[in-house]
Amino acid sequence: MIRTIEWNGDAVVMLDQRRLPAEEVYVTCRDYREVAEAIRTMVIRGAPAIGVAAAMGVALGMRQADPSRLDEEFEEVCRTLAATRPTAVNLFWAIERMRRVYQSARGITLGNIQATLLETALKMWEEDIQVNQLIGWNGAELLASGMTVLTHCNAGALATAGYGTALGVVRAAVAAGKKIEVFADETRPFLQGARLTAWELMKDGIPVTIITDNMAGHFLKSGRIGCVIVGADRITANGDVANKIGTYSLAVLARENQVPFYVAAPISTIDLSLASGEEIPIEERPAEEVTHVFGVRIAPEGVAVRNPAFDVTPHRYVTAIITERGVARPPYAESLAQLAG
Amino acid sequence: MIRTIEWNGDAVVMLDQRRLPAEEVYVTCRDYREVAEAIRTMVIRGAPAIGVAAAMGVALGMRQADPSRLDEEFEEVCRTLAATRPTAVNLFWAIERMRRVYQSARGITLGNIQATLLETALKMWEEDIQVNQLIGWNGAELLASGMTVLTHCNAGALATAGYGTALGVVRAAVAAGKKIEVFADETRPFLQGARLTAWELMKDGIPVTIITDNMAGHFLKSGRIGCVIVGADRITANGDVANKIGTYSLAVLARENQVPFYVAAPISTIDLSLASGEEIPIEERPAEEVTHVFGVRIAPEGVAVRNPAFDVTPHRYVTAIITERGVARPPYAESLAQLAG
Repeated sequence: MIRTIEWNGDAVVMLDQRRLPAEEVYVTCRDYREVAEAIRTMVIRGAPAIGVAAAMGVALGMRQADPSRLDEEFEEVCRTLAATRPTAVNLFWAIERMRRVYQSARGITLGNIQATLLETALKMWEEDIQVNQLIGWNGAELLASGMTVLTHCNAGALATAGYGTALGVVRAAVAAGKKIEVFADETRPFLQGARLTAWELMKDGIPVTIITDNMAGHFLKSGRIGCVIVGADRITANGDVANKIGTYSLAVLARENQVPFYVAAPISTIDLSLASGEEIPIEERPAEEVTHVFGVRIAPEGVAVRNPAFDVTPHRYVTAIITERGVARPPYAESLAQLAG
Repeated sequence: MIRTIEWNGDAVVMLDQRRLPAEEVYVTCRDYREVAEAIRTMVIRGAPAIGVAAAMGVALGMRQADPSRLDEEFEEVCRTLAATRPTAVNLFWAIERMRRVYQSARGITLGNIQATLLETALKMWEEDIQVNQLIGWNGAELLASGMTVLTHCNAGALATAGYGTALGVVRAAVAAGKKIEVFADETRPFLQGARLTAWELMKDGIPVTIITDNMAGHFLKSGRIGCVIVGADRITANGDVANKIGTYSLAVLARENQVPFYVAAPISTIDLSLASGEEIPIEERPAEEVTHVFGVRIAPEGVAVRNPAFDVTPHRYVTAIITERGVARPPYAESLAQLAG
């Protein structure tokens, strides 16, 4: 089993996703600031996984908090963790859930508050795996045996506490006895597809083929791809989907070639407070992610770079959204409100 | 001036494009087999440039040919050079032109045959630059001052004897006093955009911004891009365009967002012998180009890879084709026949 993130008794341990697949190295975060830094620098990434990491970060932060100024420290811990990455809503959802637990626990002893927060974070870890298994179950029936699934980025065990969202659907279909093959976009600049999706599917013995991002259109046009399944970082009330940069292009190319385009995500990714994708903040990451690959410079010194980490896919390109509570179909304003409300 | 390819008196000298932008190193090819190897391994690339390289390779091969079996050696030289890369038609066009010159020169002395072949190759080098300047001139009027041009791969001075096709249009617009900015797709796996297009535009002081291939859709949707201009490796009678993998995706995304999509290419790229793009052979290159970047492994060992080097853009996505003889518009079956016939 892939150990994306774990609580080891007094610290948060994460598999360092920057160094896969060459090295399986674990990073131990001994205070909440180290957890925040691990999220910011993408030691851990993937919307559900950073939600769990933030929850563990809050629990860790409060175990080390000054008892004389507990409320202030709680706010400082939450603020620091919330400031790491802006796009995935699961981060804010997890912090909000920890806040509600903290607020309702404020009468009890400090030791009990700390235990309750930790218990909640561990429960969120466990729930995330169960949620992914349900997503997988719900999505598996959309896949026919013999199908090739195209996926982008990594929405797998490494993007969650375990099992995965998009790759959870693939795993569930395989578990149901279907023959499924995966095409994985390499997903520049961070190479989540070539490094992470390929690595975890090979571990599970599921056939995977890497292509560069710009090959996806060619294979969608060729008839080689049965459907596209991706994860999500935030889904707005109308069904617009923020996900890894390049997702929008895939969705357009899938529709142009009559290939179904599915989004697999937990209910916690749905943000009913935003009417449409235009309101989602899109993170711009450092230029070095584009100009360097594993420390090797590939572009001229001093060249200008843009590096938006996400894009927004308008809901009209989305065939269905697969959640743990069922599969939402258009019109999403109704189906998502029903599932998430 | 950028020296992509030159004849130095008794050898063909090429700027080694595998090592740019980090190093400006020149490779000297002392026989036709070395020229073929340089084309195959992409020391030189770009449809017009490999046409010129092949012509120089034929001239070089015949300078060193055994006088007692000239015809056989000529065929062997042509066969070797033609077997390097299958998609760009300019390679075969250049070899055919050399063949016609050889056939009509067969009465004269060996020294004169050799001189005539070399003269033809050098003339093709010179003509290519002139053709690109005309393409630039014809295309420049399609660009408005203040526009951002999105380009893919490298269709610049490095893809030709000089000046470039797609980048020739940009250069001509800038020379006409227009303010033009370029967004360059990095163009995995060989990174022609990040390495070559960025390098040559920076040399010319034309503002260039690198994006990863999967960001193009996002910026086309955002309104940031005024038009797309790419080169071509082969254009069939109906206007279908084979070009660097990823071009098809750009064309679909451009049309989806009402952004003009232009192809800039010399008449020698038009292959009226093929009715449509489905007949164009698409080269599949080694997996290592995808799994390694500058020798650094980025994907798990043993993973499956697909690496088609080109795709075909159906003519219905192409707004116009810019050639040295004028700008072709749909229906291309008529306009291309008129220009190329």
